[in-house]
Amino acid sequence: MSCISIGDFRTEAGATLSDAHIAYHRFGHFLGDPHGGNNVILVEHALTGNADVAEWWCDLIGPGKALDTTKWCVIAMNALGGCNGSTGPSSPHADGRSWGSRFPALSIRDLVAAEKKALEELGITRVHAIIGGSMGGARTLEWTLMYPEAVDAACVIAVSARASAWQIGIQSAQISAIERDPFWHGGDYYSSSQRPREGLAAARRIAHLTYRGEQEIDERFGVQAQTGEEPLGPYRRHDQRFAVNSYLDYQGSKLADHFDAGSYVTLTEALNRHDIGRGRGGLNRALGSSQVPTMVVGVDTDILYPYHQQEHLSRNLGNLLAMAKVVSPVGHDAFLTESRQMDRILRNFLTLSQPHPLDVDSMIDYAI
Amino acid sequence: MSCISIGDFRTEAGATLSDAHIAYHRFGHFLGDPHGGNNVILVEHALTGNADVAEWWCDLIGPGKALDTTKWCVIAMNALGGCNGSTGPSSPHADGRSWGSRFPALSIRDLVAAEKKALEELGITRVHAIIGGSMGGARTLEWTLMYPEAVDAACVIAVSARASAWQIGIQSAQISAIERDPFWHGGDYYSSSQRPREGLAAARRIAHLTYRGEQEIDERFGVQAQTGEEPLGPYRRHDQRFAVNSYLDYQGSKLADHFDAGSYVTLTEALNRHDIGRGRGGLNRALGSSQVPTMVVGVDTDILYPYHQQEHLSRNLGNLLAMAKVVSPVGHDAFLTESRQMDRILRNFLTLSQPHPLDVDSMIDYAI
Repeated sequence: MSCISIGDFRTEAGATLSDAHIAYHRFGHFLGDPHGGNNVILVEHALTGNADVAEWWCDLIGPGKALDTTKWCVIAMNALGGCNGSTGPSSPHADGRSWGSRFPALSIRDLVAAEKKALEELGITRVHAIIGGSMGGARTLEWTLMYPEAVDAACVIAVSARASAWQIGIQSAQISAIERDPFWHGGDYYSSSQRPREGLAAARRIAHLTYRGEQEIDERFGVQAQTGEEPLGPYRRHDQRFAVNSYLDYQGSKLADHFDAGSYVTLTEALNRHDIGRGRGGLNRALGSSQVPTMVVGVDTDILYPYHQQEHLSRNLGNLLAMAKVVSPVGHDAFLTESRQMDRILRNFLTLSQPHPLDVDSMIDYAI
Repeated sequence: MSCISIGDFRTEAGATLSDAHIAYHRFGHFLGDPHGGNNVILVEHALTGNADVAEWWCDLIGPGKALDTTKWCVIAMNALGGCNGSTGPSSPHADGRSWGSRFPALSIRDLVAAEKKALEELGITRVHAIIGGSMGGARTLEWTLMYPEAVDAACVIAVSARASAWQIGIQSAQISAIERDPFWHGGDYYSSSQRPREGLAAARRIAHLTYRGEQEIDERFGVQAQTGEEPLGPYRRHDQRFAVNSYLDYQGSKLADHFDAGSYVTLTEALNRHDIGRGRGGLNRALGSSQVPTMVVGVDTDILYPYHQQEHLSRNLGNLLAMAKVVSPVGHDAFLTESRQMDRILRNFLTLSQPHPLDVDSMIDYAI
């Protein structure tokens, strides 16, 4: 992982983040822009993801895989506001303490603007494609509207044109779960010995139920008791659980081990503010104005970003490249777990995105 | 409202609740059992409902309405564990303090057993019909399996044969929201000056998002700001909200004003334990054994009890009377809000449930 400075960053809402940095990973080699196009693919991670895309999308990125790193230069950046290398609430402020509550609210557009600046710092002014799911899909979509001249094609996965009221509600319930943790301290807990672990775990348990299809969870767990526990005893007890609650406890605890609650709140709030239509004459006018060839992908059982939201995108986007449905009981997370379907989708996307395929052998390796 | 003692109550899991009481409402007159059938309809309320069914189902219960109280004797009981007249965690224990954490875990079967006992105390050994939605539907379904000889027909609305793992997960998230309130005190807050209001409100905000269809909520609120507030400012602030969050705050606060957190936890836990198949050879065997003519009703946009769960009931019930789908953007709550459709459904149910309609004029009014 590398890190690059993007200097002082002014947010969409008018706050300033001084001395911001963006962390990134690169896989494969940048071959320059010899013919008005290049071999860069930007992959955008989801809410609690990170820039190590070859790890969490390991079936899809690498030599010979759908995003073939012997041909493509795959770049991924940790979102601004995150906790995996880029500047976020846990990062040191100029005064030496963490930003904490002084960290401004970010929009999806802010995350994208920071990425654009970071790419420019790397000497890359355009990319062949941007691909992302969930929060990564929201950023991908904003890229096509903010910097259409810099993107040849986009693949927008499991997301909507704006936050729905239901999403804002359930995401705000997660923020509330963190804020109600006594160790949250209004976001300024970094200098104390305790972190708001329980709040973050509670947020994740709620979130996870929106990431998974209800029939898939039910087929796996049903009303089973966790092994060795008795959830049907005469009094309700925390250590006597249904199997599904043990599973959700594990998911919550795992996230609390490796993610920062402040970043979780910041990026969740950015999802609340996701709205392609803002300042662009409304949703469908904004989508209609898009000129970047865009493929839209959805999951049939997605609770969080139901498939009708991707149908809405496909009906209204100005330059629809293709539409694909992942069929899976898994729900929203299927774009991470259904590797065979995603492999086919990403290969098709790259084929459709190249009317004149790159001749890699004639290109020069530019070190970045 | 009246209240009746059912004495000491032993729960399914083996705890004892001493000196339990059940509160009930009656509308219309009981005309006895002259011909092996009678004119009693038991209406079962949902989680935070109460026995005043003519209030919350006012379009459906009353003179000339679907449940015509000039003909039928409509009885409704507050669930055991509740806080609207029946014995619950807030009720006084023999030692004068509230039950609090000493209140045992209840199952849906416990709620039904308590109702049966209360009806017997009223001198009623059978009913013509039982009707209920959501938690009321779960109780109705258990009635048909626990006391089939006492029920001529049942109408089971917006519920499933057992809790799904997803339901257990999201319901447990609500319990967790309450337990994490610093004023919860393990359930023993009744003697303190503060109640776990915030926790109960947080639970309700989550629950409400499962009671409403996501498209209905989105059509009403979208990404609108609450009037006079600016949710897109440079820093996230609690008093600068999206309209949907103001709406959810209102729902949470309203419940916290009139409902007890201990009862909320107890009844939510009863829903977690809902399982028709327990001790009966599994789900489908239990359903197949049912002999009570049962009508199943679902809502097409229900997130909490998706329609496929009612289809499962209808496929497997031993004596299916009819199946009806409420078509509405409202989601789960449609059985409370779509009065015109519910009117038609309940009228049809009563017609189908009476191969030989009652001749009310020939019957005698028994005071109860």
